[in-house]
Amino acid sequence: MTNIPACAESAARGEGGAGPLHERLEVMNFLNEVADRYPRAISLAAGRPAEQFFGAQEYTQRLGEFVGHLQRSRGLGLDAAFKRLAQYGPTAGLINPLIAEQVRSDEGIPAEPSRVLVTAGCQEAMQLCVTTLCREAGDVLLVRSPSYIGITGIAQLGRVELAHFNCGEGESLPGRLGQALERLDALGKRVRALYLVPDFDNPTGGVVPQAEREAVIELCAQRRIVVLEDNPYGLFLYEGEPVPRMAALDRHGCVVYLGTYSKTLCPALRVGFAIVPPTLFGSEAAARSLLARLCQAKSFGTCNTSQMTQAIVGGVLLAEGGSLVRRIRPAVAYYRGNRDAMLEALEATFPPATGLRWNRPRGGFFMTLALPFEFGKAEAEHCAGEHGVLTMPVSFFALDREQDRRLRLSFSGCGPDEIREGIARLGRFVHGRIGSPRTALAHAAVG
Amino acid sequence: MTNIPACAESAARGEGGAGPLHERLEVMNFLNEVADRYPRAISLAAGRPAEQFFGAQEYTQRLGEFVGHLQRSRGLGLDAAFKRLAQYGPTAGLINPLIAEQVRSDEGIPAEPSRVLVTAGCQEAMQLCVTTLCREAGDVLLVRSPSYIGITGIAQLGRVELAHFNCGEGESLPGRLGQALERLDALGKRVRALYLVPDFDNPTGGVVPQAEREAVIELCAQRRIVVLEDNPYGLFLYEGEPVPRMAALDRHGCVVYLGTYSKTLCPALRVGFAIVPPTLFGSEAAARSLLARLCQAKSFGTCNTSQMTQAIVGGVLLAEGGSLVRRIRPAVAYYRGNRDAMLEALEATFPPATGLRWNRPRGGFFMTLALPFEFGKAEAEHCAGEHGVLTMPVSFFALDREQDRRLRLSFSGCGPDEIREGIARLGRFVHGRIGSPRTALAHAAVG
Repeated sequence: MTNIPACAESAARGEGGAGPLHERLEVMNFLNEVADRYPRAISLAAGRPAEQFFGAQEYTQRLGEFVGHLQRSRGLGLDAAFKRLAQYGPTAGLINPLIAEQVRSDEGIPAEPSRVLVTAGCQEAMQLCVTTLCREAGDVLLVRSPSYIGITGIAQLGRVELAHFNCGEGESLPGRLGQALERLDALGKRVRALYLVPDFDNPTGGVVPQAEREAVIELCAQRRIVVLEDNPYGLFLYEGEPVPRMAALDRHGCVVYLGTYSKTLCPALRVGFAIVPPTLFGSEAAARSLLARLCQAKSFGTCNTSQMTQAIVGGVLLAEGGSLVRRIRPAVAYYRGNRDAMLEALEATFPPATGLRWNRPRGGFFMTLALPFEFGKAEAEHCAGEHGVLTMPVSFFALDREQDRRLRLSFSGCGPDEIREGIARLGRFVHGRIGSPRTALAHAAVG
Repeated sequence: MTNIPACAESAARGEGGAGPLHERLEVMNFLNEVADRYPRAISLAAGRPAEQFFGAQEYTQRLGEFVGHLQRSRGLGLDAAFKRLAQYGPTAGLINPLIAEQVRSDEGIPAEPSRVLVTAGCQEAMQLCVTTLCREAGDVLLVRSPSYIGITGIAQLGRVELAHFNCGEGESLPGRLGQALERLDALGKRVRALYLVPDFDNPTGGVVPQAEREAVIELCAQRRIVVLEDNPYGLFLYEGEPVPRMAALDRHGCVVYLGTYSKTLCPALRVGFAIVPPTLFGSEAAARSLLARLCQAKSFGTCNTSQMTQAIVGGVLLAEGGSLVRRIRPAVAYYRGNRDAMLEALEATFPPATGLRWNRPRGGFFMTLALPFEFGKAEAEHCAGEHGVLTMPVSFFALDREQDRRLRLSFSGCGPDEIREGIARLGRFVHGRIGSPRTALAHAAVG
């Protein structure tokens, strides 16, 4: 199972939708089906957070603590505070000051409560931003390829024009972005938003270096393009220093920061947020207007985010003193151990002569493996059925054919033993396909 | 405060939106501001459910009971069941069989779990249906005027063409609908969906009689128009027999049923649902396809509905044996008493000579009062500031000027004493405007 839900039947039909989206969704469904069909296959495909770190039974206690906070801050009795919580609430959210505090503390972003919009998961924040920023014919959402399927799906279902550019490892992101913008300029397109996961991207695990973040901000500020900085994995850092968030580097008011508690607490809360910059391209009024329009769009989508689940998040944030860093330390250690086990297993399984290449992600849930042959739907199924290991073709996340020889490996959902066994199984599949290491070398993808 | 959330700033700006929507939203915001400015005004404007019937502190217990149910039904340990709940879940929902059971039992609709989509409040269900059904240029959503502002907002923000028709008291709904459809046919429009609240409509409190429901279904089935039957108030019946739901009368597969637990349990759960008919205009495949497309759209909006709040709803449904009728009995009695107090106060305050007219709603939260003069933004503010009572102009819900002399009175949020005092205050305002009963009669609206 992946963390990108898709309905089992959306595939086969697909009335009224764009072709490429339906192809990709078909594949996603196919993958879920494969997981169901081969339940004993080890899944290196799922990008879900590890359940052992969820505080499920603790959450009801935290909810109670937040109600206590509500009592004290509003001078209410216990019952009145509970009832207030159970009622309709402000569209923008209830726990905005606590979220702003956590983001200031953990992400180094000067967030103000008045600029936070609490959403029903980060997916809603993405959808609100894309559909609010791209409303007119000729408005374009720009993404890298490969990209998280949640963003491309929003564009395609919301009838928002989507453009993409490639940026391979070692290439300059601002360089490739600049080329893409010139190409789109020439076509008369207005890029309204650029979607990026600068920290431990899904599916690549890549990080955008600080100098490139700054250059991207300059490029976007010049052209009045809003950067949607999506950061679900940033706190899951396994080595080195964190790179400053784009929202922290932003001096022009062009970065909208998107966050979630799905990875740090748990997905079932469905609490995420968008944080609008203090000015939008220098205008305070424009920033207020953007937030107001996001808010208005939310009011017609989900009214307000569940105050019950907001209260649980609020209670945890109160209990943790405004930072989640200490709380997620065991999860970070676990994921780091998983990553290391995966890297060691890859080295043991694919010696240099095989020509396979993979990256060493400094954080997050994912890495990718470049193969000397195409790896798509058929190969994923064969791998699960014949070898008992499930992985994700990166082509599922791509907007062109440049990712056809690459697969995504997730190390969030399985422990080290399963990971080692999963990579060994993958090795049997790959070695079966490439024959001897010598043959493999001849066909190896160059990176 | 109303139960239609809107951001305090969406009004003044409103870039990129349609004029009428922004006018109405401006007014909604204005009303919230007025409520804030005159906190001692009695609000007969708010359409919120009464908080004393929320089971807030009970909910954590119900969540635990649902986890027990999950343990038994899936053979899981306590901790595993909690963790499963806290994880990502199916897009279509977790408690679909329990919802289907409640809808079968309480609403008389032959609902199947496989046709239920659980949503983050009913507002999301409405949005998914409208944007999924109306995707092509020329596709139209048809509503009555006045209509719940949540539906018109969806259309206008989602760039869906909206058409409306009027149907006054005593007029035939199928008759007026038929005329509207002919008019739209002549314009080359394809009506894809008709939105109706057949039971205790917001804002009018009106009920569509059974024969008219049947005739509307026939008309829509002939033209392959999906009826979106929104039923937030149906269980709040104060006299007489319930009229069969349109989804229960539907033999053609043209009614999608929309429901919510915001009124029966509490709004903060944000759990609603859509139920697709077994066939869509006779085709099982088309019905499956519609559900799949709704599901796909949801996956790119909110991923899945919070399993925490679904579990609370599930726990309550288990505890209540699958029906909410017994549970809401005290709330029904309270609202009935409020309605009666309001009707009595209206009779005492506005004798026949004043020419004022109001309806006697058989259920729900609202009634309307026809005045012999215009009642808009300025009058609402004057009433709150000078007379200490806040009501809603029906023009806020209207798509034309036919509702300018009418106001909505809600009897869900205040008890009988406040209602009596509120109507007395309204009386002072009205009598001040119309002068003597004799003058009033001369100007009275005819209905």
